[in-house]
Amino acid sequence: MTEKYPTSGLQLRTLVKPEGSLELSLVEVPTQAPGPDEVVVQIQAAPINPSDIGLLFGAADMSTAKASGTPERPVVTANIPERLMPAMAARLGQSLPAGNEAAGVVVAAGSSPAAQALLGKMVAVLGGEMYAQYRTIAVNQCLPLPQDATAAEGASCFVNPLTALGMTETMRREGHKALVHTVGASNLGQMLNRICIQDGIGLVNIVRKPEQAALLREQGATHICDSSSPTFIADLTTAIEQTGATLAFDAIGGGKLAGQILNCMEVAISRGAKEYNRYGSYVLKQVYVYGGLDLSPTEITRSFGMTWGIGGWLLFPFLQKIGEAEVAKLRARVASELKTTFASHYSHQISLAQALDVDVISAYAQRATGAKYLITLNQATQ
Amino acid sequence: MTEKYPTSGLQLRTLVKPEGSLELSLVEVPTQAPGPDEVVVQIQAAPINPSDIGLLFGAADMSTAKASGTPERPVVTANIPERLMPAMAARLGQSLPAGNEAAGVVVAAGSSPAAQALLGKMVAVLGGEMYAQYRTIAVNQCLPLPQDATAAEGASCFVNPLTALGMTETMRREGHKALVHTVGASNLGQMLNRICIQDGIGLVNIVRKPEQAALLREQGATHICDSSSPTFIADLTTAIEQTGATLAFDAIGGGKLAGQILNCMEVAISRGAKEYNRYGSYVLKQVYVYGGLDLSPTEITRSFGMTWGIGGWLLFPFLQKIGEAEVAKLRARVASELKTTFASHYSHQISLAQALDVDVISAYAQRATGAKYLITLNQATQ
Repeated sequence: MTEKYPTSGLQLRTLVKPEGSLELSLVEVPTQAPGPDEVVVQIQAAPINPSDIGLLFGAADMSTAKASGTPERPVVTANIPERLMPAMAARLGQSLPAGNEAAGVVVAAGSSPAAQALLGKMVAVLGGEMYAQYRTIAVNQCLPLPQDATAAEGASCFVNPLTALGMTETMRREGHKALVHTVGASNLGQMLNRICIQDGIGLVNIVRKPEQAALLREQGATHICDSSSPTFIADLTTAIEQTGATLAFDAIGGGKLAGQILNCMEVAISRGAKEYNRYGSYVLKQVYVYGGLDLSPTEITRSFGMTWGIGGWLLFPFLQKIGEAEVAKLRARVASELKTTFASHYSHQISLAQALDVDVISAYAQRATGAKYLITLNQATQ
Repeated sequence: MTEKYPTSGLQLRTLVKPEGSLELSLVEVPTQAPGPDEVVVQIQAAPINPSDIGLLFGAADMSTAKASGTPERPVVTANIPERLMPAMAARLGQSLPAGNEAAGVVVAAGSSPAAQALLGKMVAVLGGEMYAQYRTIAVNQCLPLPQDATAAEGASCFVNPLTALGMTETMRREGHKALVHTVGASNLGQMLNRICIQDGIGLVNIVRKPEQAALLREQGATHICDSSSPTFIADLTTAIEQTGATLAFDAIGGGKLAGQILNCMEVAISRGAKEYNRYGSYVLKQVYVYGGLDLSPTEITRSFGMTWGIGGWLLFPFLQKIGEAEVAKLRARVASELKTTFASHYSHQISLAQALDVDVISAYAQRATGAKYLITLNQATQ
């Protein structure tokens, strides 16, 4: 461990205060010395995923965000509605780091051969606390990137690619043959579309606007249902019938959509049924909610028999369940198709300080489809 | 097959007509001659279970029920709201028999030794079409009752007992250690309470009235939460924490209760948590909806992390899944504890014709806890 690295660096923190406010700030933290099987990564690019935003903002109303601090060390404060404070109890008063994944260069390595082998390499990393200048992390949480990959190309190696692969894997493991995805035009949705085309899997893409439908059509998607169309329910039923989809992944969560999907599945299945069953079809119809773009209650009109399920789906428990060997296969596929199937596109690149700019926050907090933010840092010094 | 039995008998029928009405009637149907492995059962008692009512009335508004026909051959007609007719498409124009289960005497038997062995015996039967004077049925759908059992005692041998046992079996198979049941004071709920006491399983009984709580308390229940109490949510959370229940069976279906149960589970789990996880606990919290006492939409406020599920649960697919050998074990337990653990209580006994009496219908259609109807027939001739 003779390499040189700064003894400290900036790290983004999010803090819920007991009086009902959220504070985002940059703090100077010591760079942790690497253990034998660890490396120090100089972070260069880290995406803001929807899953990061939940931790960053908690239950705060970001329309109340106010700036203070200095340009280099900005501080943002926002109110948390009183009724939502109980949900924040577990993180009260804890200054938490954020950022699920990133890419950067290994600037120091522990004594083990595996750690030493990464020295100077560009790696993608998963493990939280990535909105920071430096991150000390275990070797097995690093994915070495191909020689010609940039930090921006490697920054989203884990969450979206493994989530998209997790969907098709879940489909196979739970005995379904095709999928519905409720945010077809999102970065993740486009990735899933490429996987399904490549693997020959039927995919029903739900989008919310005609231009999103056009985008997916250009990318070769076959089944696209626009929820803003008056024929949406009929279109969705037909697409489900044509693909045989009995599984859906839903990033929206709130409102009636999950129940509508189950109902369209039941109608599609019953079109092929030979006799009446008062309990509905015995074919399992499943919706997994993996996000919460709409935080309002999920409203389910149970008109689809008794063989159905709605539940949460989360990447990390899924990866735990399938085990290390299977995860390694998925990772290897991501690395080998990084610039094609698993390419991410960013609409905006911002600095760590800009991530705490009130105007920038109001833009990325919307989590709009097509608007994807990448925090870049340390790159001037490379 | 030298035994004598009537060549025909009355059978209750339910018919949805295309013009938007429901017709209930008694029709004379030929008694089917038994095959080698079949018997003819003279039905003596058949319960009206909530699961029967769905088939009997379909989507009809029973407050519009009108009587016609004769006292011996009554006919009841009721309107079906137009918006609900699409859900009736699969049964349109089909005159359907009803009645899931019953008990009666075997009056004729096929040639096989197993069939012949049942001749003259009182049996419980499962298999639909039980609201009838005679039912020809396979031997393996009959459960011979103990010598001293009456038809009334044996009539509810299957649906409620196997459903209650199915709940504790599901609990064990899916790795939960205790249960919540949303209709604690129902016939099924009281049975489940007896099973859980006997088997040492933690059970949280939800009831809707103080007198139901008192009834369960008399029967030895430990955890009773009255949803009409202002402290219901706090009581439920405490009971869940004390039992460690992470699974619930819900017969209500509509409204907010299922979501509230999941939230109470998450709060109970997080009381023991050591660190904040923005995704909530990774402990699976599951609600199975097995009935629809409230047909309004299920409204779920997702405030319980990402590791949760809500889904339909139905007895017949469950029995198929566990397989014949396991089902046989459950049936044997029911037969041996018929007068204790699995005793059913009926508030009313009615004739087959009275089941089509408009006033009687308006009473049993309410499916009120504590009001349980038994159709008795053929007994005068025994």
